[in-house]
Amino acid sequence: MGQQSAVSALSIVAFQVNGRSYHLPPRPLVAICLDGSSNEYLTVAMAHGRMPNLQRIIQRGHHSVARAALPSFTNVNNASIVTGTPPSIHGICGNFFLDPVSGQEVMMNSSAFLRAETILAAAAQAGRKVAMITAKEKIRDILSHQLKGIAFSSEQAQAARLETHGIDQVEKLVGEPAPNIYSAQASLFVLRAGLALLNQQRADFLFLSLTDYIQHRFPPAAPEAIDFYGALDEELGRFLKTDAILGITSDHGMNAKQLPDGQPNVIYLESLLSAKFDPDVRVILPITDPYPAHHGALGSFAVIHLSNPNLTGPVQNWLLKRPGLSEVYDRPTAVRKLELPSDRTGDLVALARRDVVIGRTPQYHELEVLQNGLRSHGGRYEEMVPFIISHPLKPDYLDRAAADLRNFDLFDFLTNGVQLPGLPLS
Amino acid sequence: MGQQSAVSALSIVAFQVNGRSYHLPPRPLVAICLDGSSNEYLTVAMAHGRMPNLQRIIQRGHHSVARAALPSFTNVNNASIVTGTPPSIHGICGNFFLDPVSGQEVMMNSSAFLRAETILAAAAQAGRKVAMITAKEKIRDILSHQLKGIAFSSEQAQAARLETHGIDQVEKLVGEPAPNIYSAQASLFVLRAGLALLNQQRADFLFLSLTDYIQHRFPPAAPEAIDFYGALDEELGRFLKTDAILGITSDHGMNAKQLPDGQPNVIYLESLLSAKFDPDVRVILPITDPYPAHHGALGSFAVIHLSNPNLTGPVQNWLLKRPGLSEVYDRPTAVRKLELPSDRTGDLVALARRDVVIGRTPQYHELEVLQNGLRSHGGRYEEMVPFIISHPLKPDYLDRAAADLRNFDLFDFLTNGVQLPGLPLS
Repeated sequence: MGQQSAVSALSIVAFQVNGRSYHLPPRPLVAICLDGSSNEYLTVAMAHGRMPNLQRIIQRGHHSVARAALPSFTNVNNASIVTGTPPSIHGICGNFFLDPVSGQEVMMNSSAFLRAETILAAAAQAGRKVAMITAKEKIRDILSHQLKGIAFSSEQAQAARLETHGIDQVEKLVGEPAPNIYSAQASLFVLRAGLALLNQQRADFLFLSLTDYIQHRFPPAAPEAIDFYGALDEELGRFLKTDAILGITSDHGMNAKQLPDGQPNVIYLESLLSAKFDPDVRVILPITDPYPAHHGALGSFAVIHLSNPNLTGPVQNWLLKRPGLSEVYDRPTAVRKLELPSDRTGDLVALARRDVVIGRTPQYHELEVLQNGLRSHGGRYEEMVPFIISHPLKPDYLDRAAADLRNFDLFDFLTNGVQLPGLPLS
Repeated sequence: MGQQSAVSALSIVAFQVNGRSYHLPPRPLVAICLDGSSNEYLTVAMAHGRMPNLQRIIQRGHHSVARAALPSFTNVNNASIVTGTPPSIHGICGNFFLDPVSGQEVMMNSSAFLRAETILAAAAQAGRKVAMITAKEKIRDILSHQLKGIAFSSEQAQAARLETHGIDQVEKLVGEPAPNIYSAQASLFVLRAGLALLNQQRADFLFLSLTDYIQHRFPPAAPEAIDFYGALDEELGRFLKTDAILGITSDHGMNAKQLPDGQPNVIYLESLLSAKFDPDVRVILPITDPYPAHHGALGSFAVIHLSNPNLTGPVQNWLLKRPGLSEVYDRPTAVRKLELPSDRTGDLVALARRDVVIGRTPQYHELEVLQNGLRSHGGRYEEMVPFIISHPLKPDYLDRAAADLRNFDLFDFLTNGVQLPGLPLS
C-alpha cells in the first residue's frame, strides 16, 4: 500500500478533550516541542543560512511568537501542550513541589499528578496511530498517560518494550545507537525516530519533544548552537518530504543567568528569608530535576512556604525591594496571574529577572556541575517562544495567532486551523 | 579629500556622559532605532529572503535581544538610547504626564523635561560631526538638546534651516520630496538622508530614528511589513558599503491588541475606577501623542492619580483581579521595578496584557481613526527588542550582551565594544 493511499484513508473525525474540540484532517500531524528555544536561536541560525527548510516553512506556512505557561519549565509546558490547558487545569506546575498533604517535597514526574486528559490519548481513542517520543525520560510518564500507542524516550530507548512502550528495538528503527541524554544527538534521535515511524506508517499523529542540552550550554550565536539548529533543519527537511502537517513550538526560552565574571547570578532566597523572617521557611525550586548538569537546580522561579501565614505581607514587601526579583505574588494573585493550581502553590511565588536565578542555600546547589556558565529559565523572560505551522492558517486562526497565542494552542492549530489544498475552509 | 583619509583622520577620543565613558573609535558610527520592531519582524522578513544585508551583519557582527525601558514608548526609549540611562535618570517617562506642580496634563516633548545630557551633544563637543535625524518631529527637540550639529525630522524636513537645524535643503540632499509621516517612506527618508550626510562627510556620528507606522498597521507576516523590512535592508546594504560601524536596536516591540472580531481590546480604566472608587480619579495614558492614527491613544500602560491616597491599596487589589492587567504597582514599587522618575509617576501604575490596551473612557478615544485594527505597545510584552552590531564584539562586551543587555547600551557598545581589524582589543 503506497503512502498516499494510506494517508487519504484517514477519515475526518473530531474529538473533545478538556473542553476543546479537535477536528482531525486527513493528513498525518507532527507536533514538535523544541525544548528551550527562544526565537533568537532561530533568527541567528537562519541569518547564517543554516535553516533553509525552516525558511520554506515560514514562507508557505505561519510563524509567530506565542506565550508559554508559567513557570517556564519543561514538565509544565509539555503537559500544557499535550492537554491544551494551563497548569491551573492540568496540575503540573513544576518538576518538584511541596505536597500539602504529606509535607514532603515530591517529584511531579508521575502521571498520577496529571489532572487532565491528553490530546494524544484522545487521538488514539479516535483511531489515530499515535506516537509520543521525548528526549527526557522524566516526562514520558506524564505525556503517555492512558495512551494506547507508542511512547518512549531517547534517554531510555533501549528499555522500550512492546507491552509497555508500544514499540521495541528502537535503535534498529532509527539505525543508530541511542545517544547520551547530555548531547545534541538526544534531540536529533527523537526526530529521526519520529520520521521513521511516520514513513513506515506506524504513526500518523506524533508528538516529538526534544531536550535543551545545547541551549543550557550555548547562546544563539555560538557555533555549537548554530550547528545544532542546522542539524535540526536537516531533519525538518525530511519531514517536509512527507505529507504531514508540521507544528513547532517550545516549552520555554533561555537566558544567561550570570555575572560579568561568569559566576552564576544567584539569590539564595531560603538563606535570606530564614535569617530575616522565618527559620522554618521552605523555598521550593520547581526546576529541580534529574538533569542537574543543565542548570544546577537554579531557575528563575521559586515557591515560598512560610511557617506563619501572617508573614506573607511583610515577606512580600521585602522581596519586592530585591532588585533581582521581577515579580512577587501572594498565592491568590499568583494563581490568577500565572494560572497555577492553588493547592500546589506556596504562600508566595517569586520570579527572577532576566539575568538572575533563585537558589535555596549556597550548600544546596552543586555549582561545579555547571561546566559552561549558567543559562536557565523559569521566569517571565523565558515565557515567549516560537510558534510555527508548515501550512497556511485559516483566516480566523490567523486572527487568533495575532492576539494572545499560547504554545498550548498547538494541537488546536494543527487540527482545526490549517488550510489544506483541496479542503474547504470549513 | 578621499573618504578613507577623512576617516583615518578621526582621532580616538573619550568623553563621559551621565557617568558612562565613551571611547570614539576612528570610524564613523551610525546608530539606528528601528521604531516598533519586535524581533519577529526581522525573523519573518529574513525567512522570506528579504534581508540579505541584515544576514551579512549578523554573520559578521552581533545579534541578540535587549530589554528596552518601560513604559515601552518611543519618547521614553529614544531618550534612553541617546542618554545611555533609564527614565529614572533622564526623566522622560511618556509622551504625556500629569504635572504635579500645575495639576495639568502636559506633553513631555520638550527638552525642558530632559534631566540628562545626551551622548550626541557630548560627541559633538568632543569634535565629532553629529547628525540626528528622526521621522517624528515630536522627538526632535529632546534628541537635539544642546546639540551642535545637524538635527531634523523627515516629518518637517522642509522646515530645516541652517541656523536652527544645522542644515537646510534636506529634500535636495536626499533627492526626493519629504514624505508624509503616515508612510513607510517616512522611515526610508531618514536612512537615505543619513547615508547622504555620511557619504558627503558632513556627519560621522549619526543617530537615525524611524517611525512605527508600518508596525502599528501590519503584523510581521503581512506583505506590507515584509516589503518594508526588505526596503530597510536595501538601505542597510548601502551603509555596509561605507566604513561606518552600524548599531541597530528598537524603542519597543508591537503586539495586536484586539478581540477575535477585530475590535480593540480595551479596559476603560478611568470609567471603571471613577464609578467604583473615586469620581475624581485621573488615568493618564502616556502613549497619547500627535499621531493618534497609529494607536488611538491606546497603549498597554497607564498611570493612575487618585484624589485620596488611602485608596491606593484597595484600588491596587481590585486592579490585580482584572484579568487584562498583567502588573499593577504602587508608586514606590513602580519607581524601583520600572525605573521611573518618582515625581512624574502617579499613585499606581498598571501594565496591560499582551493583547490588551488601557483607555480612559469610551468617549475619550476616537476609535474610528484606527483603519486596520489595533496594534500597540507600552507594556511588558513590548519590552524586548533586537540589538544588532555590524562588527564582532570584544569578549567582555560579548559577556555583557549575553546577560541583561539594554537597548540604551547601544552607544556604549558602538564606541567601546567593537573589535575593529587592526585595532588592539584595548
